[in-house]
Amino acid sequence: MKHHSRPAALRLLPALVAGATMAVSAAAIADDGLGDYRDRFEALPHLPPLPADNSLTEEKIELGNMLFFEPRISASGVISCATCHNPALGWSDRIPRAVGHDGQVGERNTPTVLNSGFLEAQFWDGREPDLEGQALGPIEASVEMAMDLDMALERLQEFDLYQRHFKEAFPDEESPINRDNLAKSLASFQRTLTTPNSPFDRYLRGDLDALNEQEKEGMQAFVDNGCIACHRGPALTDSQFHAIQVPGSTDLGRYVVTEEESDKYRFRTPTLRNVAVTYPYMNNGATETLEEAVAIMGEEMLGRELEEQTIADITAFLHTLTGEMPNFEVPALP
Amino acid sequence: MKHHSRPAALRLLPALVAGATMAVSAAAIADDGLGDYRDRFEALPHLPPLPADNSLTEEKIELGNMLFFEPRISASGVISCATCHNPALGWSDRIPRAVGHDGQVGERNTPTVLNSGFLEAQFWDGREPDLEGQALGPIEASVEMAMDLDMALERLQEFDLYQRHFKEAFPDEESPINRDNLAKSLASFQRTLTTPNSPFDRYLRGDLDALNEQEKEGMQAFVDNGCIACHRGPALTDSQFHAIQVPGSTDLGRYVVTEEESDKYRFRTPTLRNVAVTYPYMNNGATETLEEAVAIMGEEMLGRELEEQTIADITAFLHTLTGEMPNFEVPALP
Repeated sequence: MKHHSRPAALRLLPALVAGATMAVSAAAIADDGLGDYRDRFEALPHLPPLPADNSLTEEKIELGNMLFFEPRISASGVISCATCHNPALGWSDRIPRAVGHDGQVGERNTPTVLNSGFLEAQFWDGREPDLEGQALGPIEASVEMAMDLDMALERLQEFDLYQRHFKEAFPDEESPINRDNLAKSLASFQRTLTTPNSPFDRYLRGDLDALNEQEKEGMQAFVDNGCIACHRGPALTDSQFHAIQVPGSTDLGRYVVTEEESDKYRFRTPTLRNVAVTYPYMNNGATETLEEAVAIMGEEMLGRELEEQTIADITAFLHTLTGEMPNFEVPALP
Repeated sequence: MKHHSRPAALRLLPALVAGATMAVSAAAIADDGLGDYRDRFEALPHLPPLPADNSLTEEKIELGNMLFFEPRISASGVISCATCHNPALGWSDRIPRAVGHDGQVGERNTPTVLNSGFLEAQFWDGREPDLEGQALGPIEASVEMAMDLDMALERLQEFDLYQRHFKEAFPDEESPINRDNLAKSLASFQRTLTTPNSPFDRYLRGDLDALNEQEKEGMQAFVDNGCIACHRGPALTDSQFHAIQVPGSTDLGRYVVTEEESDKYRFRTPTLRNVAVTYPYMNNGATETLEEAVAIMGEEMLGRELEEQTIADITAFLHTLTGEMPNFEVPALP
């Protein structure tokens, strides 16, 4: 797997401009007649949109990287964000439902953090709008890290190295080790976990040989069958909530947040970026293969039984959405 | 922290020869009058001794690296070797006693795997003589990964990528995914987890400025007070068993293995390599600081109350035993 470097991710604009230019000139030279399809998609930028109140700095990213791998902000002392969002496993866990504190099994499949900065709603039920809101949830959740947040902050306070890094990341603050800054630094690190330059991105940017014939058939089937209605935009999700009850799931989904009857069984559309390396699938993780997942989505969301060849083509297309894995460091913790 | 590269570790001999030559010529030029002390120690080689029946190959190291980070050979699916032997935490866990399957707390402090290839007895009670014997224990232990080993092998068998890597690592075998090869590849990877070129190693090899005056005082106190009787050899352990009952411990130690009365409360001497980054200390992890640990060892093992200055000097010396952290990859698991 190729890794792209974080400094490159920060030097965003020139790369994007160059990419766009290349796409235009290459398209002018040769075409595969699928321009109308390509126009329905967006290549993945190197960085997601940034919030006005949390500028992206190297200091916050480095601190967030440390905190992401820090198990001592869990009650057991051995569970970190990276336990379930494991970089070795597509930044997820590849088991059906998350296993957390004291071996408790949660109700839902762990979403990958890859490209989570592009989502406009976090968690399966969208209970937080952004990564700053998301970051602290799993630390406190009793089935995840099960840690009192004030106690987590106290533990961090004990280490000179964390005192220094928080001070560097938030230089204007008297007492920088606090909830907000814990969330901001974790969110900053997570925003760098993008996976640009997948074969499909290269294709969209003008390298028309980056996809083979079957993958192109799959792209067309993906559009023609309506998958793109919900799986759209750079991360291939509309960040909206759609009702689905997959086999074995009794999860009420979005209803848990809003308590509105119409939100029962609704879940935020998951990203399809890197979907080939973030199995198993669905809110309960009960679906093991991409082929099964595509067939289920056809039946449940599109109301049709997709043909075997169509499923194979769409699956081939989905495999082209695996990008370059992000650069990160296993930090030397204090 | 600097990382040394694995290929360099495999190109062992030239580096050692060059190191030895340098030591001689530098010593000829200048001396700090402590040659007799230096002669009592050994610099840490880049690689530990290799067993006759498990040659060290890149293929085994790479496979072992994958397996070390593989949580699906645990019953929960989320605990890997790297959970407790965490590269971010000195390849240990920095909590008093290990936390494993379902949050169970074990009886003993997790030893670092760094330089474990230099030990002639594995585990606190020495129940295995080598890393091949050690490797499978924690996978099966009910308070650690709690996994039936045959089931672990079946899980690995399901992945084409593991089938290929085992075949490459053990090319002459019909069914290479078996217990022996799981142990051999994990042991091979662990043998590469060495930490050469600590300040003390550079000092021993002739760079007499690599230690400051207090650190040199500490080295002399370490010898003069007899610490070196048990903490000797390249990893600063004799791999022998010595009786000690530290505060709060009722652990019978070596007796659990041999059931010989004389082995009660005996534990294998731990390595002092990287001891500054592998806190807390003692078999029950109840001792938080190096200063405390040195004082306790003085009282319990040497029968004397060390002076405060001596404790400070020895502690300063122990800090010079932190070497370059080993190179490894967070693998892309299947």
